[in-house]
Amino acid sequence: MDSMSRVERSLAQAIGLAQGSDGPPSLTAAMRYAVIPGGARIRPRLCLAVARACGDDQPALSAAVAASIELLHCASLVHDDLPCFDDAALRRGKPSVHKAYGEQIAVLVGDALIVLGFQSIAVASQVAPQRLAALIAILARSVGAPGGIIAGQAWESEAKISLTEYQKAKTGALFAAATAAGACSAGWDEAPWHALGERIGEAYQIADDIRDVVLSERDLGKPTGRDHVLGRPNAVHKLGIATAVSRLEDLVGSAIESIPKCPGASDLRAHILAEASRLLPRELARPAA
Amino acid sequence: MDSMSRVERSLAQAIGLAQGSDGPPSLTAAMRYAVIPGGARIRPRLCLAVARACGDDQPALSAAVAASIELLHCASLVHDDLPCFDDAALRRGKPSVHKAYGEQIAVLVGDALIVLGFQSIAVASQVAPQRLAALIAILARSVGAPGGIIAGQAWESEAKISLTEYQKAKTGALFAAATAAGACSAGWDEAPWHALGERIGEAYQIADDIRDVVLSERDLGKPTGRDHVLGRPNAVHKLGIATAVSRLEDLVGSAIESIPKCPGASDLRAHILAEASRLLPRELARPAA
Repeated sequence: MDSMSRVERSLAQAIGLAQGSDGPPSLTAAMRYAVIPGGARIRPRLCLAVARACGDDQPALSAAVAASIELLHCASLVHDDLPCFDDAALRRGKPSVHKAYGEQIAVLVGDALIVLGFQSIAVASQVAPQRLAALIAILARSVGAPGGIIAGQAWESEAKISLTEYQKAKTGALFAAATAAGACSAGWDEAPWHALGERIGEAYQIADDIRDVVLSERDLGKPTGRDHVLGRPNAVHKLGIATAVSRLEDLVGSAIESIPKCPGASDLRAHILAEASRLLPRELARPAA
Repeated sequence: MDSMSRVERSLAQAIGLAQGSDGPPSLTAAMRYAVIPGGARIRPRLCLAVARACGDDQPALSAAVAASIELLHCASLVHDDLPCFDDAALRRGKPSVHKAYGEQIAVLVGDALIVLGFQSIAVASQVAPQRLAALIAILARSVGAPGGIIAGQAWESEAKISLTEYQKAKTGALFAAATAAGACSAGWDEAPWHALGERIGEAYQIADDIRDVVLSERDLGKPTGRDHVLGRPNAVHKLGIATAVSRLEDLVGSAIESIPKCPGASDLRAHILAEASRLLPRELARPAA
C-alpha cells in the first residue's frame, strides 16, 4: 500500500474512534469534515518515509502515529481559521469548519481532534507499549507550550515577537515531530532525527510564503495574500522572490545532508527531493538536483 | 502530605513542563492563571482517594494522573467561558481567561492544557510504563468524542438534545475518569470503578444545579442563575428543590454502595461522605448519615 493510502486508512480508523451512535451528530460530522478529504498530507507521509527508512517493524503503530500528526495539524488549522484569529472562510477548497458548522462546533472540533491525536496512538501502541511514552512526549512538545504549534500561534498575540521562535514553533515543530516520531515508532532513537524535520519545516515555511504571494486563491484552495493583510512576516516580502527560492533550495540540500545513517536512507532522500519539487509553483521550480 | 497538597504540587510540576524562557509569555502566564489557584479540586482528590483505596503503589504516577484530570477540566472551563459559548466574565472569583488575556490566548490556553494533560502522564509513566496506554485511553474517552466533556459541550449546539447523554458526557465522564484512572494508576483493573465516578458525577451535577439557583454570585465566584439565562436544563427547575436534594442524597448512597472491594474501602467511603456534605449550601445540608 502506498503511503498516501496508509495515511488515509489510518485517519479513517482514528476518526472512527470518535464516532458513536450516542455522540452529538454535528461534532462527529464536523470532525470528519475537518480531516477528510485532506491536503497533500505532507507531514504524515514524511513520518512514514522516516519510519520506512528505519525498518518500520511495527507498521500499524507508525501509521497511527502518522495519522495523529495529521489530526493535530488539522486541529490547528480549524482553530487558526476561527473568527478571533484569521477569520478564514475557505480551507482546502471548501468552507472552513466554523463557516460550515458554526463557531462553537469549530472550537470543539479542534479540541476533540487534539484528544484523538493522543488517543489513537495509545490504542495502536499495544504492539509496542514501551514506545508509547516517548511518542506522546514528542507529539506533546511539538503541539503544546512552550515550543509547539499552539505556542507558535500564540506568538501572533504578542506585542514583541521572536521571529525565530515563532517560525520554529508555528511550522518547524510539527515537521520535527514527524521525523522524530517516525523513527521512534520504528524503535529508533528520536534525537538524531529532529534536525531533518526542522529543516524541512523551514523549507516548507518559505515555500508557503512564496505560494501566498504567487498563487491565486483558486490554485491554493484558501485565500492568498493573507500574510500581507494580517501583517504576518513573509520571507518573500523580506528577501525577494529569487533569494527566497534559493534559500528554499539550500534548506532542502541541508535537510538531506542531515539524514542519519539508516537502512533506507536513499529512498528517504528520493522522497524528500520529490516532495520539495512539489512545494514550488511550477513556473518557479527547477529540476531536482 | 494531604491530597490537596499533592494535587497542587503535581499541577505546579505539570505547568512547569509548559514554561520555558523561549515560549510566548502571555500563553504560559495564562495557562498558570487558568489552573492556579483553583477551586475545590474535587476530581483530582477523588482520583487520589481511589488510588489510595487501591494501595497507591506508584504515588508519583497517581499524582500526575490526578493533575491531568484537573488540567483537562480547567481546559474545558476556559473554552466553555468563551464569548461563543457562555461568554462568562468571572471564573473562580476572578476574570475569566478571555477577559484577562483576550480571546485568542483563551482558545490557545484550552488547547495547550489538553496537550499538557496527556504529556504530564506520559512523563510520569516511566515508573510503570505498562499502565500508560490504559490511562491515556481512559482520559481521552472522558474528554473527547463521542462521550467525553467536549462532546457534552457539543450537545448544547444541537437542536435536539439527548439530556441523558448530555449530562453523562458533560459532567459524568470526567468523574468516571477520576475513579477509573485512580484505580488504573495503582495497577488495578479500571472497569469496576466507572460506576462510582458516574454516580458521583450525577450527584455533583444536581448539587451544581442547586447552587446555581440558591447561591449568590459572591458565594460561588462565578455568575449564578446562568442555566435559566442560557436555557440549559437544571434539576431544580424540573424537580423542585426538595426532590432535587433527596435525589442527590440517593445518588451519594448508591455511589458508596458501588465501591468495589479494595483495601482502603472504608477511608474512601469517608472521603465521599465528607465531600458530599460540602456540595450543598449550608442551609440545605443534613448531617451525613
